[in-house]
Amino acid sequence: EMVAGKIVFFNRPMDKSLPSMNSAYGGAVDQRAYGPPLAAQKGAVAAVVRSMSPRLDDHPHTGVTVFKPEDPKIPAVAISTNDAELLSKSIKANPTTIYVRTTCGMKGEATSYNVIGEIKGSKYPDEVILIGGHLDSWDIGDGAHDDGAGCMQSMEVLYRLKKNGYQPLHTIRCVLFMNEENGLVGALKYAEQAIAGKEFHIAAIESDNGAHTPQAFGCAPGADGKLDLHLSHMATYMNLLEPYYIQLQAGGGGADIGPLKPTAGILIGLRPDNGRYYDYHHSEIDVLENVHPRELASGSAAITSLVYLIDQYGIGK
Amino acid sequence: EMVAGKIVFFNRPMDKSLPSMNSAYGGAVDQRAYGPPLAAQKGAVAAVVRSMSPRLDDHPHTGVTVFKPEDPKIPAVAISTNDAELLSKSIKANPTTIYVRTTCGMKGEATSYNVIGEIKGSKYPDEVILIGGHLDSWDIGDGAHDDGAGCMQSMEVLYRLKKNGYQPLHTIRCVLFMNEENGLVGALKYAEQAIAGKEFHIAAIESDNGAHTPQAFGCAPGADGKLDLHLSHMATYMNLLEPYYIQLQAGGGGADIGPLKPTAGILIGLRPDNGRYYDYHHSEIDVLENVHPRELASGSAAITSLVYLIDQYGIGK
Repeated sequence: EMVAGKIVFFNRPMDKSLPSMNSAYGGAVDQRAYGPPLAAQKGAVAAVVRSMSPRLDDHPHTGVTVFKPEDPKIPAVAISTNDAELLSKSIKANPTTIYVRTTCGMKGEATSYNVIGEIKGSKYPDEVILIGGHLDSWDIGDGAHDDGAGCMQSMEVLYRLKKNGYQPLHTIRCVLFMNEENGLVGALKYAEQAIAGKEFHIAAIESDNGAHTPQAFGCAPGADGKLDLHLSHMATYMNLLEPYYIQLQAGGGGADIGPLKPTAGILIGLRPDNGRYYDYHHSEIDVLENVHPRELASGSAAITSLVYLIDQYGIGK
Repeated sequence: EMVAGKIVFFNRPMDKSLPSMNSAYGGAVDQRAYGPPLAAQKGAVAAVVRSMSPRLDDHPHTGVTVFKPEDPKIPAVAISTNDAELLSKSIKANPTTIYVRTTCGMKGEATSYNVIGEIKGSKYPDEVILIGGHLDSWDIGDGAHDDGAGCMQSMEVLYRLKKNGYQPLHTIRCVLFMNEENGLVGALKYAEQAIAGKEFHIAAIESDNGAHTPQAFGCAPGADGKLDLHLSHMATYMNLLEPYYIQLQAGGGGADIGPLKPTAGILIGLRPDNGRYYDYHHSEIDVLENVHPRELASGSAAITSLVYLIDQYGIGK
C-alpha cells in the first residue's frame, strides 16, 4: 500500500555534554518511543526518527515504539545519524520528498522460556541471590552488548563460584530472562511465580548496560523500602571493591528485576562505563567484535565478588 | 653483517589476571628493557622479545631497551604475540632456526624543543599550575594514545578556561615535553630551568596513560613531602568529581613531572581505565581511529576541573 502525505522527522540529537550517556539517551529516546503516534494523530503518513546514537555513523539504531490500541498506526523508521544530518540539511534548503518503505511488522506471539540455573544454598536454600540478563535482542545486530554480555556474566558467576569450590550459604540463581525488549514478558512471569511461591530474593542483580568497565552498582529498594539501611550495611564490605574503582550507590536497579520488588531485599544493577554503549546499542554493530574481553570479564568478576559478599555478610536487617 | 649463533627468546606473557594492566605491563617489561644485554653477556647473537601486549594479535609493540655503555651490543627485536605463540610451539617441538634482520639504529642527536603556552595568573603570577604530556612517540604508530592524547588534553585545558572567560589566580601553564621515550630529555631541561629560576609549581599534572575514561588522579609528594596533608585538603573539594567516578589517591605522578619534585607542591598523574591501553601502546595501531572522542574529552574535562579547583582552593599548607 503506497500513501502520499506529510512525514514527521524527529531529529533531536542526544546531548553529548551530559555526564552520562544513559541520561543523554533518556533525554532523546521519547522521540522514537512516543513520537510516531503523536505524528499519526496529526495526520502524518509516516514518521522518521534520528537514531539514538551519540556518534555520526551509518548504522540505524532501532528500538521500541509505543502505539496505544486507540492510536492510528503509521510506519515509523529510524535512520542513521549521518542520514539524519543529510535529511535535516535538505529540509532546511528545500521542500524535500522522501520515499519510505518498511517490511517490519509484528508477526504474532510464540511461546518461549526463561533459562534458569542455580547452586542450592547449604544453609538458607530458600533464600535466593539472583543474577541475570536477558536472552532476546533487537534483530539487526547480535545483541552482544544488549544483552549477551549480561547473560554471559550471569552464567560466569555460577561457573566461577563452582570452579573455586565455593559452597554458598544461600541459593545462587542465574536467570536469563526472555523478551525484555518487547515488554518484560519473561521477567513478569518469573516475578509472578516467585511472589506466589513466597520465594524471598535477598538481592536481585541485573547486568543490562553493556560489557564495558564496571564503575558502580546502582541500587533500588526492595520490599521493606529500607534502602539506606542496606546500603550502610553493605558499605562495611564494599570498600573491598574500591581498588577496582567500583562504587555502591543509591539509584538504579534494572528492567527485568523491577517486578521482583515485592519479594526482594534489594535490587541492584551493574553500571558499566556507558560512554561507548550507545555507539552499538540496538544496531547492526552490536556484535562480539565490539566487546572487549577484559571489560566483559571485569563485569563478571565484579558481580561474582558482590554475590560472594552478600552471601557471606548479607544486606543487613 | 650476518652472524650465526644462539638467540635468546623472552616469552613471558603479561599477567592478565592482575587488577591493573599497568601492573601487568610492569611485571613483564623487564624482559624487553633489560633482557637483551643479559643475553648478550651470555654470548647470544640476538634477542627476540614477546611484545608487551595482553592481546593475541599481529602487531609488534616496541619500546626502550637499555644497554649500558659496557654491555656488548646485539640486535633485539619484539615480535607480535601471535608470532611469539608460534615460535614458542616450534621451539618446544623441534630445534628451531630463525633469521633476524633489523635496520633499527640510533642516528645521533638533534636539537629539539619543549612547547609551552600559558595564561598568566591574576593574583599569583609566579606560582604555576602545570599540565602536560609528551610530544614524541615510538615511530611505528602515530602515538595517538601515547601521548598525543596527553598533549591534546593539556592544550584543551587552556582552551576551555579561556573559552569560559575564566581568569585564573595562578599561572596555568601547558608544557608539551620533548623526548620522553628516550630519557626524559625535555622534562629534565624544563625542571633544571624551573628549579634554577625558583619557579614554584603548586601542582604539576601529567596525562600519559592513554585516552580512556578517567578513573582517578594518582598523587606523589612534592618538595615538602606532606602528601597526606595535601590529599586531606583536596578531599574537601574532590567530592565534586565523585559523580563522574573520579577519585583522588596516593601513589602515582608521572615520568615527565617527576624531575620537578624539588620545586613542586604536588605531582599528579591522570589515571584512565588502562584495560585497553596496552592493546595499542607502542604499536602501529596506536592511531587516532583507536581513540574514542568522548573518552579523550572526559580526560580533558577531568583535568580542567582539577586545575580550576586547585587554582581556587589550593592544595593546603
